[in-house]
Amino acid sequence: MMITVKTISTDLKSVREKSPLVHNITNFVVMNNTANALLAVGASPVMAHAVEEVTDMVNIASSLVINMGTLNPQWVDGMIAAGKAATKKGIPVVFDPVGVGATPYRNEVAARIVNECKPTFIRGNASEIMALAKENIVTKGVDSSASSNSAIEGAKRLATETGAIVVISGPEDFITDGKEVLSTKNGSTMMAKVTGMGCTATAVLGAFAGVNANRLEAATHAMAVMSIAGEIAAAKSAGPGTLQLHFLDTLYNLSEADIEKTFKA
Amino acid sequence: MMITVKTISTDLKSVREKSPLVHNITNFVVMNNTANALLAVGASPVMAHAVEEVTDMVNIASSLVINMGTLNPQWVDGMIAAGKAATKKGIPVVFDPVGVGATPYRNEVAARIVNECKPTFIRGNASEIMALAKENIVTKGVDSSASSNSAIEGAKRLATETGAIVVISGPEDFITDGKEVLSTKNGSTMMAKVTGMGCTATAVLGAFAGVNANRLEAATHAMAVMSIAGEIAAAKSAGPGTLQLHFLDTLYNLSEADIEKTFKA
Amino acid sequence: MMITVKTISTDLKSVREKSPLVHNITNFVVMNNTANALLAVGASPVMAHAVEEVTDMVNIASSLVINMGTLNPQWVDGMIAAGKAATKKGIPVVFDPVGVGATPYRNEVAARIVNECKPTFIRGNASEIMALAKENIVTKGVDSSASSNSAIEGAKRLATETGAIVVISGPEDFITDGKEVLSTKNGSTMMAKVTGMGCTATAVLGAFAGVNANRLEAATHAMAVMSIAGEIAAAKSAGPGTLQLHFLDTLYNLSEADIEKTFKA
Repeated sequence: MMITVKTISTDLKSVREKSPLVHNITNFVVMNNTANALLAVGASPVMAHAVEEVTDMVNIASSLVINMGTLNPQWVDGMIAAGKAATKKGIPVVFDPVGVGATPYRNEVAARIVNECKPTFIRGNASEIMALAKENIVTKGVDSSASSNSAIEGAKRLATETGAIVVISGPEDFITDGKEVLSTKNGSTMMAKVTGMGCTATAVLGAFAGVNANRLEAATHAMAVMSIAGEIAAAKSAGPGTLQLHFLDTLYNLSEADIEKTFKA
Repeated sequence: MMITVKTISTDLKSVREKSPLVHNITNFVVMNNTANALLAVGASPVMAHAVEEVTDMVNIASSLVINMGTLNPQWVDGMIAAGKAATKKGIPVVFDPVGVGATPYRNEVAARIVNECKPTFIRGNASEIMALAKENIVTKGVDSSASSNSAIEGAKRLATETGAIVVISGPEDFITDGKEVLSTKNGSTMMAKVTGMGCTATAVLGAFAGVNANRLEAATHAMAVMSIAGEIAAAKSAGPGTLQLHFLDTLYNLSEADIEKTFKA
Repeated sequence: MMITVKTISTDLKSVREKSPLVHNITNFVVMNNTANALLAVGASPVMAHAVEEVTDMVNIASSLVINMGTLNPQWVDGMIAAGKAATKKGIPVVFDPVGVGATPYRNEVAARIVNECKPTFIRGNASEIMALAKENIVTKGVDSSASSNSAIEGAKRLATETGAIVVISGPEDFITDGKEVLSTKNGSTMMAKVTGMGCTATAVLGAFAGVNANRLEAATHAMAVMSIAGEIAAAKSAGPGTLQLHFLDTLYNLSEADIEKTFKA
């Protein structure tokens, strides 16, 4: 598979034209950021977590994002119900196992979500993907303590075992279906100093998955757009505060010419 | 009723001088934005949702804002208890029926809040107001799928039936008590690309309702201030990221001269 | 005890080098801000509140921050369990009694946290510290209605009774162990117009407490860094919107030379 300026731009245009409704069950820290990133990229976000309504919300959505950043049993019930409904309906389910490996509860919930919701995409940092793949890794909270490269074998195995496209994000991002491994090389180290940039990548992946049925392409395009926008924004930013807003402005204005100028194949 | 630069400025000055305590039970996505907008406009925000304390918080507040963006039964209990306490105390209750029409659960909760809390103000986008007025409308998540104009008849009927001032926000805002229909014409399309601008309007309405007993005036002034500040901020902004912060700066600094220069009667 | 440019810089450098994992159980309004401030200052934030996992999260953390801004019984269970685990493990517990004095429920929860979690630090505005010290004070929501000076005696008594370092933040900050009273004089009045600046101070205190066992020093250094960064950022800001991002950029870039230029001893 060949990811080019053209294929990235085509999918981005498609997100803007179709404005897929992305249903997010995500954490308290990043809800605002991910909603704003989805709006900026051209999608339509909705946040709803109660078991009383998630099935109905899934029924009008183009994709579902499950992010387990700030868990409790009530929220897990909502996630599981929504994930099952989405799988039944046949829309993409993007799972972000935030902090898996940090506590037994997170490990248990992540395993339940993988088994019961059968996500079509799993995106995490290297530590999280290795923890989920039961590789030998010590996780420190929600930040990665391993390099992206070291998680590739685990990611491939996880993709094969679960049937999901697995994305490792980091300085270089890797995207795999268990066989092929694609990568995107843009970005900025400053992105790791803004909370929820990973969660935002997951949400943006939900938007691209909502418009492109080729899952490996959708995931790679989403990661490319995230890292290209981050790189352009970081070049204008004095620190992580200004980066946040330049990132949203850049997502909103991102043109094929911008992608052309920045994309590292 | 005549809304002028002078009447808007007088109410804004009043908000800044009296700094009304606005009690918000609102959604996870926008809490930070609405708290910051209330501070910037000169009010004092407080967020509290537990049934264990909402009645006591209402008792020190000047107005109550109920926003059902991210619902669950526990929060609904808090909303209902607070709304009843506010009605009993006689302070304004501003209701934002986020996403009503999107799921049966939202419809049911919105109906309960209208019936049990007897809001003095209801603010939504065109889709939400039409859904609440039981007009024929297909809602797509939390973003409007109808024009503001098309919701006016429903809004008037809803105002008459509930006794609330009903506000439809959109490119042009309409404010009605069921008989008179006022409008504000400022704003920027970019505001729709920032999450929670509608929720922020609802919160700011809570501030104005806390200082002006003329409800139609309070609502129209709040919407005018929101849309004037949004228009000024958008003119300085490269996208929705910078718009957010320029919006807060503009609210904070908004002078009678700024209003004079921008207000479209 | 003598707080100097050198001692502040040394602790800041230590935060950046050790990147302590700060476990936050905090309120919905400020989670994003506090996570970003912790990242900007060089620490590693994690947010987790469920009783199912807080003990495990505490076990990998360097400090625990408990902030009771948006309470409910489930969250209180998580706070108490985490606080007990942290005390048992011997890591610092920083308590922010947001809005104590505003409702009986808040008073009751604050008392429980003080008694059962035995916080090593308590940080609040003057109203909150006076309310917690059972001084005669009428609280208005979550904003202070008293001057910092007027809370000093209450703070000293509270420190003596609880064994905690008590911090009163305001235009001038006071830090006491019940005997000595230190102060930091930097800052900007505009900081009070950004929601959660106090909560952010509490979180940053968690970072400094994670690297310096001298508690009076850690607290004073944290407050100095907050107020110096706030002052530098405010000088560049047109209002509370831009202040937020300049504050994060300043925290991220803060050098010994910046501290030297700004610090008021």
